[in-house]
Amino acid sequence: MKLIRFGEAGKEKPGVQLHSGKRIDVSNFCADYTEDFFKNDGLANLQAWITENAENCKEVAGDVRLGPPVLKPSKIVCIGLNYAKHAAESGMEVPKEPVIFFKATSAIVGPNDDLIIPKGSTKTDWEVELGVVIGKKASYVDEADAMNYVAGYVLHNDYSEREYQLERGGQWVKGKSCDTFAPIGPYLVTKDEIEDPHRLDLWLKLNGEIVQKSNTSDFVFDIPQVVSYVSQYMTLLPGDIISTGTPFGVGMGFKPQRYLRPGDVVELGIEGLGTSKQTARAYKE
Amino acid sequence: MKLIRFGEAGKEKPGVQLHSGKRIDVSNFCADYTEDFFKNDGLANLQAWITENAENCKEVAGDVRLGPPVLKPSKIVCIGLNYAKHAAESGMEVPKEPVIFFKATSAIVGPNDDLIIPKGSTKTDWEVELGVVIGKKASYVDEADAMNYVAGYVLHNDYSEREYQLERGGQWVKGKSCDTFAPIGPYLVTKDEIEDPHRLDLWLKLNGEIVQKSNTSDFVFDIPQVVSYVSQYMTLLPGDIISTGTPFGVGMGFKPQRYLRPGDVVELGIEGLGTSKQTARAYKE
Repeated sequence: MKLIRFGEAGKEKPGVQLHSGKRIDVSNFCADYTEDFFKNDGLANLQAWITENAENCKEVAGDVRLGPPVLKPSKIVCIGLNYAKHAAESGMEVPKEPVIFFKATSAIVGPNDDLIIPKGSTKTDWEVELGVVIGKKASYVDEADAMNYVAGYVLHNDYSEREYQLERGGQWVKGKSCDTFAPIGPYLVTKDEIEDPHRLDLWLKLNGEIVQKSNTSDFVFDIPQVVSYVSQYMTLLPGDIISTGTPFGVGMGFKPQRYLRPGDVVELGIEGLGTSKQTARAYKE
Repeated sequence: MKLIRFGEAGKEKPGVQLHSGKRIDVSNFCADYTEDFFKNDGLANLQAWITENAENCKEVAGDVRLGPPVLKPSKIVCIGLNYAKHAAESGMEVPKEPVIFFKATSAIVGPNDDLIIPKGSTKTDWEVELGVVIGKKASYVDEADAMNYVAGYVLHNDYSEREYQLERGGQWVKGKSCDTFAPIGPYLVTKDEIEDPHRLDLWLKLNGEIVQKSNTSDFVFDIPQVVSYVSQYMTLLPGDIISTGTPFGVGMGFKPQRYLRPGDVVELGIEGLGTSKQTARAYKE
């Protein structure tokens, strides 16, 4: 199943994209895709409901804006340096344990919303990532059991301001949390639709030129390892997103470094998880 | 005004502690203290409502559990090393710019709930902190204007597992986000009740012995500076908490270091913001 949220920012309704590509409004089934939705078996119930009711749902027009497919997760947990080649380009060793950092949920936007370059920023960078959406409360979960806590997957661009992240002292979160730095979607793809999440191509284009191209088979830590590991340090709630790191090819790794300017167009995709596209623009008061 | 939330964990109702000390149930006025409550002028409206209705509100019994006084803030932003003496005991220099890190909101509990020492943890430590609660959406706020975005203050114990924070690679968030690591309250004290938040005594006792004792006059960065600074890097939402750092006297700074064991009792307080008390206990499956 592919879950979408559609409509004006802040007023999205829940929907589903059917196998045919047709998008339907399911707001007669539930108000939104929230923590409670996932907690209360929303996915299974929605699947059953659609089987009966899809034909009677309103169709969502093709030009309607998509929002992020999950409403206000309690946290976005990101894994740093989780592709061996990206660690190398950042001049860092492959970590012995997963590196965890947070991204403010206030950074979340729809998949095709504009990227706003923060005021005064000169080092805004891109990072295509596979996001894992948690389906039920996870604390001290074993690796063998970890996939039972996964609802599905999303495409995520973990935009990062490298000066804020690395040159302003302290912790990475400073460069990860600006508004619009977390375009998520186009949809949440439920786990059952992805045969092997560790064998997916992913890519990112800057103004039409491929700059990132890899496969999730290159993960340093795979999804069960990451879900289990994070759950040793904090409780993951339904709807929470773990973003599994980015491969080689971010702007910081280029020589000379390349960063985003107003007008730049970033397109990205992951096999089975769809594509998204953001146009960079300057911050306006 | 002093806002409380009371009742069983996860089912708290909103209340107010009056100047007399009497606690009243205000669930006839609003469902809870959420982002929307603050956003929609909840504080001013509640104040007006209480003036008319306090006498008709149910009293909250003295032995009823207090919950955290704010429901599910979108984030807890913590400021590191914000008292000069604490930076010294951590062996770190006073930072040139505020150090920012996050704490998972899933760590939030009531002020007197038990502290659960994480499985296998040997370095669970305490940190008394003044938390600033944001009253309205704040992005790129000037220092001169910053106090207009503050709703009030809370007492916070920023529990920290030092091995997870400092020895497991990567970012501090790993040692800050375990369940029960953020007891908040007893109440949210609105800004108008605190004449000068930069001249408040704060203290923390371990098993009756004072281990932290300082005054917010020792801040490296004061509240307007911190609110303004954080708002340059991310948007603060109503209900969000900025925890302003801890003074000298954490367990890591002792020689030899002192960490919490099951049965230890931690009590803390800030002038005008009340006191809280947590008993440490071991994690149970």
